[in-house]
Amino acid sequence: MQTAAAVADFRTYPKICDIADVRVLEDQILVQWVDGRVSPFHHLWLRDNCPCTECVYSVTREQVLEIVDVDANLSAASACIDQGNLSLEWSGGHRSQYDPGWLRAHAYDDESRAERRAAKPHSQLWDSRFQLPAFEYKAVMEDPNALLQWLLALRDSGLTQIRGVPTEPGSLALIAKRISFIRESNFGVLFNVQSKADADSNAYTAFNLPLHTDLPTRELQPGLQFLHCLVNDASGGESIFVDGFAIAHALRTEDPEAFRALCEIPVEFRNKDRHSDYRRLAPIIALDALGEVAEIRMANFLRGPFEASVEQMPLLYRAYRRFIAMTREDRFRLVKRLNPGELWCFDNRRTLHARNAFDPSSGARHFQGCYIDRDELLSRILVLQR
Amino acid sequence: MQTAAAVADFRTYPKICDIADVRVLEDQILVQWVDGRVSPFHHLWLRDNCPCTECVYSVTREQVLEIVDVDANLSAASACIDQGNLSLEWSGGHRSQYDPGWLRAHAYDDESRAERRAAKPHSQLWDSRFQLPAFEYKAVMEDPNALLQWLLALRDSGLTQIRGVPTEPGSLALIAKRISFIRESNFGVLFNVQSKADADSNAYTAFNLPLHTDLPTRELQPGLQFLHCLVNDASGGESIFVDGFAIAHALRTEDPEAFRALCEIPVEFRNKDRHSDYRRLAPIIALDALGEVAEIRMANFLRGPFEASVEQMPLLYRAYRRFIAMTREDRFRLVKRLNPGELWCFDNRRTLHARNAFDPSSGARHFQGCYIDRDELLSRILVLQR
Repeated sequence: MQTAAAVADFRTYPKICDIADVRVLEDQILVQWVDGRVSPFHHLWLRDNCPCTECVYSVTREQVLEIVDVDANLSAASACIDQGNLSLEWSGGHRSQYDPGWLRAHAYDDESRAERRAAKPHSQLWDSRFQLPAFEYKAVMEDPNALLQWLLALRDSGLTQIRGVPTEPGSLALIAKRISFIRESNFGVLFNVQSKADADSNAYTAFNLPLHTDLPTRELQPGLQFLHCLVNDASGGESIFVDGFAIAHALRTEDPEAFRALCEIPVEFRNKDRHSDYRRLAPIIALDALGEVAEIRMANFLRGPFEASVEQMPLLYRAYRRFIAMTREDRFRLVKRLNPGELWCFDNRRTLHARNAFDPSSGARHFQGCYIDRDELLSRILVLQR
Repeated sequence: MQTAAAVADFRTYPKICDIADVRVLEDQILVQWVDGRVSPFHHLWLRDNCPCTECVYSVTREQVLEIVDVDANLSAASACIDQGNLSLEWSGGHRSQYDPGWLRAHAYDDESRAERRAAKPHSQLWDSRFQLPAFEYKAVMEDPNALLQWLLALRDSGLTQIRGVPTEPGSLALIAKRISFIRESNFGVLFNVQSKADADSNAYTAFNLPLHTDLPTRELQPGLQFLHCLVNDASGGESIFVDGFAIAHALRTEDPEAFRALCEIPVEFRNKDRHSDYRRLAPIIALDALGEVAEIRMANFLRGPFEASVEQMPLLYRAYRRFIAMTREDRFRLVKRLNPGELWCFDNRRTLHARNAFDPSSGARHFQGCYIDRDELLSRILVLQR
């Protein structure tokens, strides 16, 4: 099935069902499957997705055909089932063959689309009773299946811990690179979370930090955050986490007007020092195309003055205060002290993190952190699942 | 004015107008300015923005107060003008002072908001008659004002050229770092655009590449792209650029239904090799909160099969073909051959780029490229403008 493989790429599309019948209509072809489903495919769609080596360059597996170069009124001159494949001859003479596994996986009748939507991974919301998914450093470094299990937990629950990580500075980079390259920021490739006299953010003080996402000052907040404990002899400084998606869902039910305000009214976040001046205006809750909560953007200490209309301002304050108040409710909070050799890895755009104040005079405290984007997480999962 | 500076940060807010009068209402304070403008400020907004050293940590210039810790019904017990500042005493006893320059710059009455919106930089659309903004390497490397002029041209027109760049490999990193750190991808920190036998994208062949944005397969496409010519002895391979925003605006006027389809129907882009598998579902045209065109996402050779409802599919093909056809119209296209020592720097999310096929047997051709995000461009501009 070489022609179909050129499009199928590194993925395989097992045959779910045979093609029972094919009918050519004016602008589309009706494929009837043995299980009774009927999938319409427009002529242009099929021509666009021709997997032959003339239309797709086999080395890169990328299309060279551009559909604009085909007559808008193109239609199939003939259509048949050939050794199980859909086989077409076009009015202009070109021939195309489609593997039934690939075709079923890309059918866009309502039933097929609903089926694919239902099969997509869903976030598993959690609260204070969350059973923290913990993984061993050695297994994640050596066993691709342990790596995959960790990454799936990260994708679906947004908070994980790794134990047994060497406490040499820089060792979090080794585990981060099991996923991919690290995302740099103005704080460096790896950043050191220590109390500093010349701090350029409250993160680098001994203050308590309220629940927040990192770098809400950027158009794309970092997808994953790693926090690796090297030394933790200071009193205080416990880590606190909440599932921002769980809070957003609760707010949506308990106060829909406040929820809408946080989805619709953009807020500015900024971080400035002598060498940089980052600002980003965006709503605190972002929804995806289906209206599902996709992202939380929140760090009170990086927030600028609200700019909304005079009429909207009281609602915005009510909604903002309510959201912050919810992050403080015990029902949502997971509180844990990180020990040397342990590492948090969490979805920075979902799981808000906080730190209790610590006493730098009581002992040393040194964490290292880094970021990786969601793109790299999802790519690594797809490669491991091949 | 130390208290005001703590919030004003690295920015200064010159006094535009004196405060003439202050009135305390139930949930807000009315500030009347000498020029007659009246700006309402809610009590909560003012308390939230108190710049005193108890509320803002002066080393990091970040807020430590969280507004949720203030009584929701807080109000000012007294308000007056003190040495030109707005001076408040709160019902709980705290005192706040606001510099009139800062206050005017953050007023949210309708007039002040409209004024600020009008003052924001606007994209300057261009077509085939575009006078390409070109800058000298030496000036950009040494003179902060030349650097700023280059970056403003990049922000506002989305396409610039730098001349006189050394032709040693890696020298584009020096100029990129005048802005900030480089954004890495699976193609590396710097990528080499050469014809390769084992190409993992059509970019690394000698094929013509249709007009596209780079990495539409990522949630955030890279903001800036650098392409530096080291050697160009091969025949063919001219660079072609179009202003994607200009095309989107023309489409909006000429075929609003097609424009809406490209804004609303998401399309999958993907790039896969043995080590990565990136996919991103997003519309081809993205609008900002004000409905202005903010981003184009387009690379035919990285596009997956369309998945839309059977009813929408013909419209999506019509719109997609129309957009591609417009990128081929002479009225929009700028065609230039890049010579050794010249470098393109353009807004990858706005300016589509293409390459004519070249003949690798006719001579060597070697370009190097890298990416930087829009966040870093805007930050550098703000720092240079201080």
